Amino acid sequence: MKTDVVILAAGQGSRMKSALPKVMHGLAGKPMLQHVIDSARGLTPEALHVVIGHEGEQVEQAMSGQALNFVWQREQLGTGHAVAQAMPNIDPDAVVLVLYGDVPLTRRETLQKLVDMAAKGDLGLLTVTLDDPSGYGRIIRNAVGDVVAIVEHKDATEQEKLIREVNTGILALPAAALHDWLPRLSADNAQGEYYLTDVIAMAAEEGMRVRAIQPLAEQEVQGVNNRQQLAQLERWYQRRLADALMAEGVTLADPHRIDIRGSLQAGRDVQIDINTLFEGEVILAEGVHIGANCIIRDARIGTGTRVEANSIIEGAVIAENAQIGPFARLRPGTEMAAGSKIGNFVETKKACIGEGSKVNHLTYIGDAEIGREVNVGAGTITCNYDGVNKSMTIIGDGAFIGSNSALVAPVEIGAGATVGAGSTVTKKVGDNQLTVARGKQVNLDNWARPQKKGS
Amino acid sequence: MKTDVVILAAGQGSRMKSALPKVMHGLAGKPMLQHVIDSARGLTPEALHVVIGHEGEQVEQAMSGQALNFVWQREQLGTGHAVAQAMPNIDPDAVVLVLYGDVPLTRRETLQKLVDMAAKGDLGLLTVTLDDPSGYGRIIRNAVGDVVAIVEHKDATEQEKLIREVNTGILALPAAALHDWLPRLSADNAQGEYYLTDVIAMAAEEGMRVRAIQPLAEQEVQGVNNRQQLAQLERWYQRRLADALMAEGVTLADPHRIDIRGSLQAGRDVQIDINTLFEGEVILAEGVHIGANCIIRDARIGTGTRVEANSIIEGAVIAENAQIGPFARLRPGTEMAAGSKIGNFVETKKACIGEGSKVNHLTYIGDAEIGREVNVGAGTITCNYDGVNKSMTIIGDGAFIGSNSALVAPVEIGAGATVGAGSTVTKKVGDNQLTVARGKQVNLDNWARPQKKGS
Amino acid sequence: MKTDVVILAAGQGSRMKSALPKVMHGLAGKPMLQHVIDSARGLTPEALHVVIGHEGEQVEQAMSGQALNFVWQREQLGTGHAVAQAMPNIDPDAVVLVLYGDVPLTRRETLQKLVDMAAKGDLGLLTVTLDDPSGYGRIIRNAVGDVVAIVEHKDATEQEKLIREVNTGILALPAAALHDWLPRLSADNAQGEYYLTDVIAMAAEEGMRVRAIQPLAEQEVQGVNNRQQLAQLERWYQRRLADALMAEGVTLADPHRIDIRGSLQAGRDVQIDINTLFEGEVILAEGVHIGANCIIRDARIGTGTRVEANSIIEGAVIAENAQIGPFARLRPGTEMAAGSKIGNFVETKKACIGEGSKVNHLTYIGDAEIGREVNVGAGTITCNYDGVNKSMTIIGDGAFIGSNSALVAPVEIGAGATVGAGSTVTKKVGDNQLTVARGKQVNLDNWARPQKKGS
Repeated sequence: MKTDVVILAAGQGSRMKSALPKVMHGLAGKPMLQHVIDSARGLTPEALHVVIGHEGEQVEQAMSGQALNFVWQREQLGTGHAVAQAMPNIDPDAVVLVLYGDVPLTRRETLQKLVDMAAKGDLGLLTVTLDDPSGYGRIIRNAVGDVVAIVEHKDATEQEKLIREVNTGILALPAAALHDWLPRLSADNAQGEYYLTDVIAMAAEEGMRVRAIQPLAEQEVQGVNNRQQLAQLERWYQRRLADALMAEGVTLADPHRIDIRGSLQAGRDVQIDINTLFEGEVILAEGVHIGANCIIRDARIGTGTRVEANSIIEGAVIAENAQIGPFARLRPGTEMAAGSKIGNFVETKKACIGEGSKVNHLTYIGDAEIGREVNVGAGTITCNYDGVNKSMTIIGDGAFIGSNSALVAPVEIGAGATVGAGSTVTKKVGDNQLTVARGKQVNLDNWARPQKKGS
Repeated sequence: MKTDVVILAAGQGSRMKSALPKVMHGLAGKPMLQHVIDSARGLTPEALHVVIGHEGEQVEQAMSGQALNFVWQREQLGTGHAVAQAMPNIDPDAVVLVLYGDVPLTRRETLQKLVDMAAKGDLGLLTVTLDDPSGYGRIIRNAVGDVVAIVEHKDATEQEKLIREVNTGILALPAAALHDWLPRLSADNAQGEYYLTDVIAMAAEEGMRVRAIQPLAEQEVQGVNNRQQLAQLERWYQRRLADALMAEGVTLADPHRIDIRGSLQAGRDVQIDINTLFEGEVILAEGVHIGANCIIRDARIGTGTRVEANSIIEGAVIAENAQIGPFARLRPGTEMAAGSKIGNFVETKKACIGEGSKVNHLTYIGDAEIGREVNVGAGTITCNYDGVNKSMTIIGDGAFIGSNSALVAPVEIGAGATVGAGSTVTKKVGDNQLTVARGKQVNLDNWARPQKKGS
Repeated sequence: MKTDVVILAAGQGSRMKSALPKVMHGLAGKPMLQHVIDSARGLTPEALHVVIGHEGEQVEQAMSGQALNFVWQREQLGTGHAVAQAMPNIDPDAVVLVLYGDVPLTRRETLQKLVDMAAKGDLGLLTVTLDDPSGYGRIIRNAVGDVVAIVEHKDATEQEKLIREVNTGILALPAAALHDWLPRLSADNAQGEYYLTDVIAMAAEEGMRVRAIQPLAEQEVQGVNNRQQLAQLERWYQRRLADALMAEGVTLADPHRIDIRGSLQAGRDVQIDINTLFEGEVILAEGVHIGANCIIRDARIGTGTRVEANSIIEGAVIAENAQIGPFARLRPGTEMAAGSKIGNFVETKKACIGEGSKVNHLTYIGDAEIGREVNVGAGTITCNYDGVNKSMTIIGDGAFIGSNSALVAPVEIGAGATVGAGSTVTKKVGDNQLTVARGKQVNLDNWARPQKKGS
């Protein structure tokens, strides 16, 4: 059966105090709305209809390039009205699932159950049992457990107020019923809005069975209205990701101090120290060690490699048994071969470091190809930029680059070549050559030091 | 009505195990006593009397330069005795508010209410309801809710022990009453001390109304006796600051991992990543992004500027849309114009970086003025110090400083000038000139590498 | 009386999903098994018998060099069978204490009590009272409080299920009894295993008194079966270490953000900022300040020294009133004299820095001896490695090393000598000499900048 998903994303979210539409605020590295879309996508729906309104252009633009059907709700007349805007595009034979752009963490499995209920002609409703249900619509069930009504807090009797199961607003039902019922919703209430929730009563009235399920955790249905709630949900989600990693055989020094914004795939016996941050797609092979305070973004790191503390890696591919950091900064386009080393206060960018080669101290390697078993001395700079163009530095296998050297690209250092310390190399150095490019040392006796000015 | 505030700060605090007087221990970047003084100052009192004793000289010296009336309590004979030391300086027409230097977080609004009560001739008492009131003096109220007595734990009946409202010791009352009562306090008790609390009984006896209010949170009246309690209060206060930031429209990646020691003013949509630290006065304009592990001290950062992870900024003024870090270290006197960049492993000090200029890698810029659209290559050093004097480096608009250059100050690089990589520049370079100051490159064939010693 | 300790360490620990034997997983920087060994060692036992099985070779190898008697349990036939493997080496006159390699945090004091009971001829049993005892064997006591039986959860009556005191498996008893009872254990149960717990029933039956004590905290007897439990125990233990530090007069900015993996000895008024990590043996003298995000390993730091944020120190000895960081990286063999300074983006290794000397910026000092009151300019590199050998750099008192210099070792810079900025020094510089080794500056007018390629 075809499933159409309607995601409500038109609300203002004024309590966020933001220039960004509420649903665009990030959670674990992507907009809340994207979480909802991604979960819904897991249901392989016929179409995803995103109802936009406040700052809708921003939403539309940020999500462009995805297969989404944007629907404008020009006036904010309630959730029923919002869903109604999407209905003209929805086949009466389909099933409709209604989601909310500011309720980001509902699991696909939970949603699937609702859709399955709707596919059988029932109304599937997601409810949740709260410690403090004040303010929420209470779920009234009949003897067999089906929902017969939702009583709003203000209308509830004292007895009904004791009910802790409440409505989340997330539901699925046959589109035909919605086509029938939505036009009949009334705005005759305090807010003057059309409430989607009223279809529950219509279903009960017309004999449609209303079945309710609950999520695994309350946070699955938690909405975000301000940044405190966003932070709460972020921390809960991060902790869930941490637990999943540990269950897979990863040691975390502190499950409360790891942040994953994207996907982190980690092999067995990976060790991750305190206060680390992963962004984008990161793959860590078996036995990788990530030191404290490291930030790893879009990288692939091979078996047994150690990334020491306070390192930042982005857009890099690193082979097995490499050593990185501490205080290393690998930028996009860095490739490290097996057993290679990048040490402290070293920056690399578009750089291939060959097997067993070492770049250990205070160095900048950009636009470079470095062979195997090369030693790059402390303070070496590849001068890859002349103000307008970037050029390459090529260093052959087994070369030795003396400390404090400047390699002015384009330039080539041959295999087995040696660059004397302090040299500025502007011309090619042949294989096994020694090059020296520095001034002659002159010593002057009894030199008078500068005097303190004004003294 | 005139208000005199008496702050008791004479206690030893031996459980702190410190050479520092207890009230001088820091909370959120300033001494506990300073918190009390600052809150009291908000009441615009006639005078602030600080009663000192143990290590009183240290307190007096640390707080010198503030309008405080230090009063010595040479012997530690109890709180009543301590307040009595301050009374000779207090006009009988005034109202007296008694505070404690180790109870740092009482809000000004709470204190104002007590003072207002005293101004009406009542005794205003701050009480708190605790889950576990063991050991504290219980508050006995009459039918209309006024306090009629405080019963010490050891003297309480079983019935009275069930009372969870307890005395905090913070109170305000007419000075005339204190002038009358304090000399009449008795030290006829186990400790042989004069207790201020006994004035409550005197008030009740003499028909003065004793009114009690409670703080918004228990922590407002929490005293600090050891470092564990100090840490608890620090974390609670930090969390309160974090909540306030979020309420104002700031996104915090983790509200438990931000520390503010001073004042942080942040515009809408500022984003602050994990594990950040702010000290002194920091102002972040709208949309500023502060990366993980950054430390920002006494700085002003303009709209849209990004500070990448692991950067430290102190005493800097940064314009809009600048980019900083990661691993940048900006020291006092750094000014960055709009759109300028300071990159990794770069240190600046007393340095103006012009609009659109870039100092991206492994560089030290000290005592320098850099124009617009300048590119400073990797490994550049401004040699600003000759061992006794500091001198300036001036770089004109559009200059290009080749990598691994040393600019020996005082020196000037003209607009549009180019410094060849690896140069040590000691003399002025004119506008649009190229300067090169390096050795000639000599290549030697078949150079024999050094041999392993001892082999 | 002689005490023999038997530590069971043969289990597979498949829920760890690890190539490492479970007992070898680290907690606070050392294997869980090592914690157990170290606590047991505190009892000065006759011998420590470690029963190994799964991946036993790894355990044996990792623990080699310690006085341990490894005993193989080739088949996993239960705890009773495991202990039986060790019995041939145990004198009947001794007392036997049974511990578990995956229950790492039982305190020595707790164990001593059990041993003392056994020395009197009783069976000493460690029990714990849990909020949720489901699944554990309940402790049945008689009128005088002695244990008469342990009832397994599945065999317990409803009444017995209400008992929240449960068996931990840790016990001590006379060896003679074990020699007698272990061969009589039956494997006639669901798992077909020989359970050590069954000796409790035997003791009761044969009139041996079974006395039970409880640990101070539940975590003392918590076993680790997966990485979530390991992380929980790690965090609890770290928090306990933090509390102990605060009790001794150390200020912690956040007790939840300090990690100690080894021993940290800290003097009074040491201040430790957020997110710090200590490994190995670290000694901090009075008044030391450790900044945020610092990592300190095997170091000794003198009175009043400040380590600024984001510094990493390993294997260093630092005298009083030194200043380090931020962003400093001190490697093994670094010695700093009183009042010396190492600044940002500086790496040192096997380096002695004399009194009052400064190495402030972007420098590598390796294999060097630096005298007193030396100033090492920014960007200085000691070129200590020629590709095969390491050599020394010696710098005399009061020398001034200009910025961006390369000192090619072996080389000596005399006392009071000056090295001009940008020099590559390859030969000895005498006392008070000035040395310059750099190219002559040439300025060319109206130099044409490179053009954009392809344009």
